[in-house]
This record gives sequence, C-alpha cells and structure tokens, in this order.
Amino acid sequence: MKAVLFEQFGQPPRVQTVPDPTPSAEGVVIKVEATGLCRSDWHGWMGHDPDVVLPHVPGHELAGTVLAAGRQVTRWKKGDRVTVPFVGGCGHCHECHSGNHQVCEQQFQPGFTAWGSFAEYVAVDYADTNLVALPDELDFATAASLGCRFVTSFRAIVDQGRVKPGEWVAVHGCGGVGLSAIMIASAMGANVIAIDLTDEKLAFARTMGAVATVNARDGKDVVGAVKEITKGGAHVSIDALGHPATCFNSIANLRRRGRHVQVGLMVGEHARAQVPMAQVIAHELEIYGSHGMQAFRYQDMMAMIRTGKLTPQQL
Amino acid sequence: MKAVLFEQFGQPPRVQTVPDPTPSAEGVVIKVEATGLCRSDWHGWMGHDPDVVLPHVPGHELAGTVLAAGRQVTRWKKGDRVTVPFVGGCGHCHECHSGNHQVCEQQFQPGFTAWGSFAEYVAVDYADTNLVALPDELDFATAASLGCRFVTSFRAIVDQGRVKPGEWVAVHGCGGVGLSAIMIASAMGANVIAIDLTDEKLAFARTMGAVATVNARDGKDVVGAVKEITKGGAHVSIDALGHPATCFNSIANLRRRGRHVQVGLMVGEHARAQVPMAQVIAHELEIYGSHGMQAFRYQDMMAMIRTGKLTPQQL
Amino acid sequence: MKAVLFEQFGQPPRVQTVPDPTPSAEGVVIKVEATGLCRSDWHGWMGHDPDVVLPHVPGHELAGTVLAAGRQVTRWKKGDRVTVPFVGGCGHCHECHSGNHQVCEQQFQPGFTAWGSFAEYVAVDYADTNLVALPDELDFATAASLGCRFVTSFRAIVDQGRVKPGEWVAVHGCGGVGLSAIMIASAMGANVIAIDLTDEKLAFARTMGAVATVNARDGKDVVGAVKEITKGGAHVSIDALGHPATCFNSIANLRRRGRHVQVGLMVGEHARAQVPMAQVIAHELEIYGSHGMQAFRYQDMMAMIRTGKLTPQQL
Amino acid sequence: MKAVLFEQFGQPPRVQTVPDPTPSAEGVVIKVEATGLCRSDWHGWMGHDPDVVLPHVPGHELAGTVLAAGRQVTRWKKGDRVTVPFVGGCGHCHECHSGNHQVCEQQFQPGFTAWGSFAEYVAVDYADTNLVALPDELDFATAASLGCRFVTSFRAIVDQGRVKPGEWVAVHGCGGVGLSAIMIASAMGANVIAIDLTDEKLAFARTMGAVATVNARDGKDVVGAVKEITKGGAHVSIDALGHPATCFNSIANLRRRGRHVQVGLMVGEHARAQVPMAQVIAHELEIYGSHGMQAFRYQDMMAMIRTGKLTPQQL
Ligand SMILES: [Zn+2]
Ligand SMILES: [Zn+2]
Ligand SMILES: [Zn+2]
Ligand SMILES: [Zn+2]
Ligand SMILES: [Zn+2]
Ligand SMILES: [Zn+2]
Ligand SMILES: [Zn+2]
Ligand SMILES: [Zn+2]
Repeated sequence: MKAVLFEQFGQPPRVQTVPDPTPSAEGVVIKVEATGLCRSDWHGWMGHDPDVVLPHVPGHELAGTVLAAGRQVTRWKKGDRVTVPFVGGCGHCHECHSGNHQVCEQQFQPGFTAWGSFAEYVAVDYADTNLVALPDELDFATAASLGCRFVTSFRAIVDQGRVKPGEWVAVHGCGGVGLSAIMIASAMGANVIAIDLTDEKLAFARTMGAVATVNARDGKDVVGAVKEITKGGAHVSIDALGHPATCFNSIANLRRRGRHVQVGLMVGEHARAQVPMAQVIAHELEIYGSHGMQAFRYQDMMAMIRTGKLTPQQL
Repeated sequence: MKAVLFEQFGQPPRVQTVPDPTPSAEGVVIKVEATGLCRSDWHGWMGHDPDVVLPHVPGHELAGTVLAAGRQVTRWKKGDRVTVPFVGGCGHCHECHSGNHQVCEQQFQPGFTAWGSFAEYVAVDYADTNLVALPDELDFATAASLGCRFVTSFRAIVDQGRVKPGEWVAVHGCGGVGLSAIMIASAMGANVIAIDLTDEKLAFARTMGAVATVNARDGKDVVGAVKEITKGGAHVSIDALGHPATCFNSIANLRRRGRHVQVGLMVGEHARAQVPMAQVIAHELEIYGSHGMQAFRYQDMMAMIRTGKLTPQQL
Repeated sequence: MKAVLFEQFGQPPRVQTVPDPTPSAEGVVIKVEATGLCRSDWHGWMGHDPDVVLPHVPGHELAGTVLAAGRQVTRWKKGDRVTVPFVGGCGHCHECHSGNHQVCEQQFQPGFTAWGSFAEYVAVDYADTNLVALPDELDFATAASLGCRFVTSFRAIVDQGRVKPGEWVAVHGCGGVGLSAIMIASAMGANVIAIDLTDEKLAFARTMGAVATVNARDGKDVVGAVKEITKGGAHVSIDALGHPATCFNSIANLRRRGRHVQVGLMVGEHARAQVPMAQVIAHELEIYGSHGMQAFRYQDMMAMIRTGKLTPQQL
Repeated sequence: MKAVLFEQFGQPPRVQTVPDPTPSAEGVVIKVEATGLCRSDWHGWMGHDPDVVLPHVPGHELAGTVLAAGRQVTRWKKGDRVTVPFVGGCGHCHECHSGNHQVCEQQFQPGFTAWGSFAEYVAVDYADTNLVALPDELDFATAASLGCRFVTSFRAIVDQGRVKPGEWVAVHGCGGVGLSAIMIASAMGANVIAIDLTDEKLAFARTMGAVATVNARDGKDVVGAVKEITKGGAHVSIDALGHPATCFNSIANLRRRGRHVQVGLMVGEHARAQVPMAQVIAHELEIYGSHGMQAFRYQDMMAMIRTGKLTPQQL
C-alpha cells in the first residue's frame, strides 16, 4: 500500500509503498476513508513521544471500512463502517476490565504505538474492544474528526466533569477541544462561558452555544470576570488549552465545591503545574485529569448526533 | 383577608373573610399573585390526606411578593418576588441538614399542613430555607405552576434519575409531570420516548422534545415497543402517572442496569405495587422514589429558564 | 476424565468417564482442587434453569490450577492457582466493556451454561476476563466457597449498597449469603443487625460481627424492631434470603433515603414481588438488584483476606 | 467569667475576668468542660488569621454542657452534653442548604471568628445546625479532641476520599490528622501505608492499624516505595501534613484513577503548590480539598465510637 512515512524525527515525510498490513488474531485492518491531523502528530513527528519508533506512519484520527478481521474478532466483519478512539485498550488489564480503557496499562494508539492512518490501510488491535460503528448519517470526514478532540471533550464534560443542567461551565481556550466542550456542555443544558484571546473565536463560540464570553487579552482579570458573570464562580471549569495560566485560572474561577477538568496536555516544562492549593482546601475544589474516551462510551454520543443534539460537522 | 375555605371534606369551599396571617419568627407572609390547582388538592379536599385539619384553605402552587418577614429571617424582605416548593423543610432535622429538605421529618406544606394560597395572603414557615427568588423574566403565573409538577420532574430526571446526555429516557404518562419530564430530559441531551393513551397527547409530547412515542392503547406491548426503539431498553424510565401498570412497565422496559424513578403517587390500594423482582436482580435494575425538590435546587432550574433552555410557560 | 453427570433432570447423577476438555482459544482448562455445592445446583438439577442442557455436569463453586491455556490467553499459564466468579463475562459486549461482567449479555456460567466442576477438569471460557489469582494464603477449599455466596455479598454490600462506615445495615436471613454480608459490612465499619428465625443462627451472626439481632419468629414486628434499634430505620438493608416477606421487610425497615439490596433470588411464583411503593416515594427509598461479582473486583476482597480483615474460612 | 485572653498578637495571653456571654436567638452558651489546643491556635495568636479580632479568647476544640439556649433554638436545652465542629455553618446560605456547612459562606468558628473555649463559657451560634450530642460513653476530654483533627480526617477519608474496603490508602504524615486517618481508614477495611520521618511514629501508626510503613528520611524514594508495596500505587492518598513535598508525593504515588485528598493546610508561601499535572492527565488522577466536617455527619462517626470500631481516646 501507499503510506506517508518519515524516517527521521523532524524530517519531511514521504509517500512510499510499504507492505499491506494483516490483522492480528484480535485485530482488524481498516481501509482508510478519512484521516485528520492535530498537534499530537506534530509532537510525534518531532520526537517528543517515546512511543514512536522509526520509521513511522502517523495518523490517529481516522474512519473507514473494515477490510479484514482476525479469527478471534466476533463483533466486526468486512464492510463495516467504523472509527476508533485515539487510545485503544488492550481489553485484558485491570483498567480495561473496570471499563477504563482510556487509561489502559498497554495502550494501543494508531499513529503512535503503531503505524497510523496516513496510509491506504491501517491495522487496529483488540478490535472487539476498540472499534466503533458509524451511524449511516455520519460521513467519514466528520467521523475521523471525532476520535481525538471531540471525544476527549465529551468525556471531560460528561463523565469527568459530570456537568449538570443549569450549571455554569467555564471553558478556557476555544480551539477544537474547547469548541467541542462548549457544544457538548450546552447540549446538556449547562450555561457556558467561553474564554479566549480573540473576539472572532469568541463569536464562533457563541454560535456553538456559549451564553457569555471573556476576552482574556491584555492582562484581563479572567477569574474576576467569570466570578462576576456566574455570581460566585463556575460549577465546572475546563482547561482546554493546556497552559499554566489557563490551568491556574480554571481552578481559581470555581465556586465552592467546583470541579476543574484538565484536558489540555501539559508537557515538557509544563508537566508540573502550580495550583491554588489553599483555595482547593478551603473551598473543597476538585481537580480531575481527563484522557480520551472509551469506545463503548461513543454509544451515547452517537445517539445525540443521530437526533441532532450534537452537530460535530459544524466544527 | 379573603380566602377560599372548606369546613367539611368533600363540601363546596366558600370565599370567606378570615384573619390576616402574621409571620412566625422564621417565616414570612406572602401576598399571593398567582396560584394553581392539581390532583393533590382534590385528595386534600376529599379527606385522603391526614395532614389536613378543618376548616381548611387549600393551595400549594403559588407565587407572590413578600409582605412581611419574621425577625429571624435573614434572606428575604418586603417586596421580594418569590415562590416555594410544595414541600418545605424545617431546616433543623437530619434530612434538612444533609440537604434533603424534600423528605424533611417535619414538613411544612402550605395548603396541607397549614392554610394555603387560595387566599390573599399565605404564611410560609422557615423562609430562609424554603423561599425561592423569581428571576425578572418569570411571570407569577408560570412561577406558580413550577412548584409542584415541574420541580418534581426536575428532581426525578436530574437528581434521582441522574439522566446522562444521549441516554434513552422512557416517560410513562403525558400529564403535567410527564410533559415536564420530557422537556427537562430533552434539554439535558437525552432521547425521550413518550408513552400515553391518546395520539393528541403524544403529538404534544413531540413538541416538548420527545423523539419517539408509544400509544399504549388496546393492550399494546409497551415494554416490547420501548425495547425495540431503544435496541435493548431504556436507560432511565419514569412512571409519571402513578398506576400499577405504568409502574410495572416502567421497570420492565429498562435495559440492564437501568434506573426507574417512581414519581406518580401510589395511594390507597396502590400503596403496595408489584415489581418484576427477578428481572431487578438478574439485570441489576435500580428503583428510586422521588418526592418534590428542595428550594436550593431551584437555582439550576432557574438558570435554564433564564437562558431559554427550559420553557415551562409552554406547558 | 471422571465427572459427576446426570442425564435426566431430577435423576441421580453418576460418576462417569467422559472426554477430557480442551481449552478454547480464549479459555483455559482448570484442574479442579475443590468444588462446592449450593441451592442453585439443586435448581439446575431439577430443570428450573433453562441454560442447563442434558447430559450435564454441575459445579460452579470451584478452585484449582490452570492445566492448559488457549492461544489467545495472555494473563494465565499452566500451574497458576485460580478461582472464578459464578458468572463469567464474554468480555466483548457493552456490559462487559463498561466493567459490568456480572450482567454480561452472553454469560458463561460453569455448571449451568457449560459443564462444571464436579469433574477432574473444567473448561472456563474468556479466561483473561474471568479468572482470579489466589493468594498463597488462601487454600483451595476456602477459595471454592468464595465464588458464589461470598462474592455476591461483597458486591451487594460494597458496590451496590455502598455501605458507609457507621451506618446501620440490616441483614435479613443468616444463611451463607447473609453471614457473608454481616462479616463484610462489619469489616467496613458498619453496625449490623442480623435477622433470622433461630437463636442459634443469630448467636453465630454475632460472632461474625453483628451488634444487634432480631428473631423474626412468631409474627414478630421485624420492621418495628429494626426501626427501634436504629432510631429511625436502617441506612442499608439486604434481603439475603429471597422471599416476599423478607424482601418487603427489608424495604419497609429503611430510614428516609435508605437503600435496599435484593440478593436472595426471587424465582417462580415469587418472580414478582410486592413493595411498599408509597413509602418508596415519600421517603425516596432506593432499591437495587445485585447479581454476582466481576472477576476484577476480587482484587480488593483478596486484599482484605490477605491482611485478615475478612476471614471467609470462618463461615 | 474567667477567660484566657490576649490583647496583642504574639503577646502572652492572660487569665482575665470578662462579661459572661449570652446566647443569640439561634445560639447557645456552653459551659466548657474540656478544651484542646492545636497549631491553628498558634496561627491565630500570631496574627496569621484575618478572622481574629483583638482582644481575643482562643479555643476551638471543646466539649461541655449547654447552659442557656436562645429562643429560636429547637433541638437543645440546658444540661445537654455537646461538642461542635471547628467550622460552624450559618444554616442559611447555599452551601449550608446543600448540606455543605464545612464550606459555609459565613462560617462561625469559635476561637477565630468569635471568642473561643479557653474560658468558663463559650457562645456558639446557629446551635440547631452546629451542635453535636455526646453519647454517654464519650468523656469530655476525648470529645473535645474530636472537633478538629479527628473529624477532619473522618471527612477526608470517608466523604472526600470515598475509601472502599480493600483499597490501599497512603497517609503522608503521622501527626494527629494522619494517625486519625490511619485509624479511620483501617476501620473501614482499607489497607493503610503510613509515611513519616521517625520510626517511633511509624511504630505507633502500626498500632493504629497501618499494615505497612515508609520512613521518608534521607531522600528516600517515597513514591517508589508506595508503588512497590501496593503493586502500582495507592488507590487513595492523603497529605495529612501540609507541605509541598508531601502534597506532591501524595499525588505522584497514586495508581491510575487514584484520588488524592489535601487535608494539611497550605499557607503563606505554600498557598500555591506544584502538582504532577502531566501524570494527573495521563492517569486521570483526582485531587480533592477537604475542610472540617459538618455537625450532622458526626452521627455515623459517633455510631462507630459507640460500638468500639473507632477509639479516638487511643490517640
Ligand atoms: Zn488528534
Ligand atoms: Zn488494558
Ligand atoms: Zn400540585
Ligand atoms: Zn427538616
Ligand atoms: Zn459480555
Ligand atoms: Zn452457588
Ligand atoms: Zn484544632
Ligand atoms: Zn452557611
């Protein structure tokens, strides 16, 4: 097959012909119909991710049709339209058994721990656990875009933030993760405040459902602004960017017993972050990390897409 | 003041002049601006409710303005626009302390345990705990209608059913409680199935957000229909009517690990109800009673009304 | 191998020589070192269980050593000391993916859906999901006794009842399930009331940790007795027997917002059970079914056995 | 009455005669029978606490008998044996209404926001909400010692950490808070690792229930040691000391999806603390602040003391 391959970190990838993949006993090979690109790919290409082994084919945001299935695969057959979350579980470790494939101890990540979807075909392991059926209504391009930012936001808002209808949700950063979070939280009945540095992004955030916005430019007191709008602070706040400033603000702008969800990655020098711990204690704040989403949890998200309650194609 | 008063159970009430109420130390007197009527009033008037002492003034669905406040009241003053839940907490028992005023051990229920709102003025006890401020956007008539069926449904769906976005919610009975539940669950991102006996009600249920309907007339297999629509059963189901048949169906139509919420009252000969206990065990079903809603939980509901996510005036 | 086999329901089983089992791709064969017997076996032998196909080898409470493992098995090898829960999950359905193997849609139950452990060897499917390692401290006989009543009680008390330290727990029925529940709830810091019909059983219940007892003989008002001891009702109550009377009492003796867990099976004419639904609503009681326990949840139970906090060998 | 009073921060307090307190309408005056002292008193005396107004009488760990009750007090009368948590709720704010008096918006703290218990009598406001009845078994000296460190640990372990039986709990710091946490977690069936700098404290921690210990002296790799003992990390970990190093270790030594509870205060230059945020994200760790405990939650703790499951007099 043809694949986009790089042989050195930071060097231009080239289209090459490589051997076609074959499915493992528990895996499938997918004919790639659509594939996306995000900042994580850049990290992998630059050599920041220890999972990537050279030579490498990137690509973790994908959708396609099953071409072949291993002999232990029971739920999938040739022709099925599918996508995958960017973190696949092994299905056999304690975390997978408890339903937490997103923090599996032996994660399968196409485009990182194995060759990815910048190719005609991609092999996905543990297919019964990790594949997700696409509803007919969902085109491949939209489906490919779900697997990384949108599902990450779904888990952050729904399962980790446990947002309740009528709560105030502050979303720091209006990139792909942030806009997804705004759409999802709004569709759950929450009132969302969008925070970013440009009015254009904030205007778009309003079309995704935000009922209030804060432009953080020029040393704006973001925490004060959120507390004023919400009369005391957000119930839930997420750092959708991944920066020490947004992380700190997202905790500091909570009301008593509020919940912060850290979604934006904190890498390199930001791997350790300062938090307002005295406030965390006095107001009993809660801080949650959030990491991808399990394949089985796509079901509820797909149900919302099917009835038009979520419209990821707008993003 | 003038009040609608009855002196014998089941006898016509008459408008009479009675002494004006005065606030208790922790209570207020409210000038009634709007008051509603529901089936509970009929039970009270018929003598089915042991709390009602003759002569009696009914009325528990009310909104108005504070006229006078007792000397221990700290949060309310003359002129405040307010409503109350139909169950008021004493503020001092174990249930109230734990935030569960809706099951207070010494409940204050205007129109039942005390004279109600079919009068110019009504006294409400424990005002700091039980009064709810009305947003300017909310007119008195709509506010009066919230305190019984709408808030009961809010608690049943949000706090007891803990509905999650994308879940299937079956609502048995499309009266006031059921239609409220349909609106609320839909506003939270759930997909709702409405069940009733007439196509007119089901058509209206669709305008409230239901995405599917089942007409239960003529021995229809409701459980089978819900299981087919939902591909396995509802995640959450509520009996909004209060009848042995709807109660049973609402449990039986759940998928594995589904949650039933009993909202419709089961009185008299229905006080004991048959449930499919073998299925409850094998599928680990969960059954919850739901009873009113605490005043402090109106906050999130009002936030949804303010941003148009809930529109109780449509009901 | 030699196996205890019956060819007709209700007819005496006989020891026969049958072919040795071989492991499926995802399964293992276990050399049986200990096996138990309980009422469920009697139901299977009588033909009450539609899963049982003739001729049949019973036995679902087992411990032994792995003799051979299928080629897809990654976590187990020959010689490992193991046991299994009485319900095995398929590992591939929605319930299994969400960590709820105990309500798997295609359950594997040795001794019911397949030949069981009254034999020299037994085949167990989906071994990576369903096998449990035995700590060295735990002998085979005790381990075999865990898989049915003890783990059922562990899940009922810990995961379904979510008992908290200092709560009152009422246990109706002091057979194997009930005594296990008493030991487990006491080890979690709860205060347990044991209820049964004989003083001998109640005396033994005290040695398992019960701090109070109620003898239900001769029309005793069990509900009144529990409410008096607990000053208002139990926080959590379980029906460990499976009878309409214990089920009803176990719900009726709860305090406001209390939780009932139904563990004892309700079969045949008891499949439908009457519950005090008016009380469920007014006091917002919660009712949970409980069914076995997932293999991965043995970990915490084994940790308690290892440090002597649980001593199932006493039962 | 006689009271221990200081007129300048950091100056020796003196015993003086001051006017006897009188109860507010919702308050009581308690005759002090026992009073304790802790590091918080030192902070108050040094002027670190902005709530303290001069001249001041310290004392927040107290037990005694009710001497007089205000006219709105319904639950208490002269002669009742009582204690109080160190944070009292106002009973009327959103946090109090939701059952979270420990983070009340207008906290009453005897010895800080008002004169305390280093006196013959102390006034306590909002008595119906904040007083706790002492069981006959509990002497005043032990009761006085509960209100600060022991109840703080109870909430941290039971309600915030939500420790489950059989889980591994790491306790960083074996002072009063840490030893209490060890006793409580052990009484709930958890396996506890105690961490401190001296073998004497660790030996005492074992008598409180710890099943393993780590001496953190001399640059010991505490995180590695906890991960080795627990085969992967603690399920729950608490920083009972309040120091950047113990806070960081207590998060870093968690297993995937583990929960850290910050109990030890982080003041002054430690008000902001560094956390391993990359690990929080990748492993979906959870961080909770914990602050005192509500009066109504003493009930379960007292139930454990009454049946000997907790023995605070040993501390
Ligand atoms: Zn991506
Ligand atoms: Zn895994
Ligand atoms: Zn009503
Ligand atoms: Zn109350
Ligand atoms: Zn399964
Ligand atoms: Zn058995
Ligand atoms: Zn103290
Ligand atoms: Zn308060």
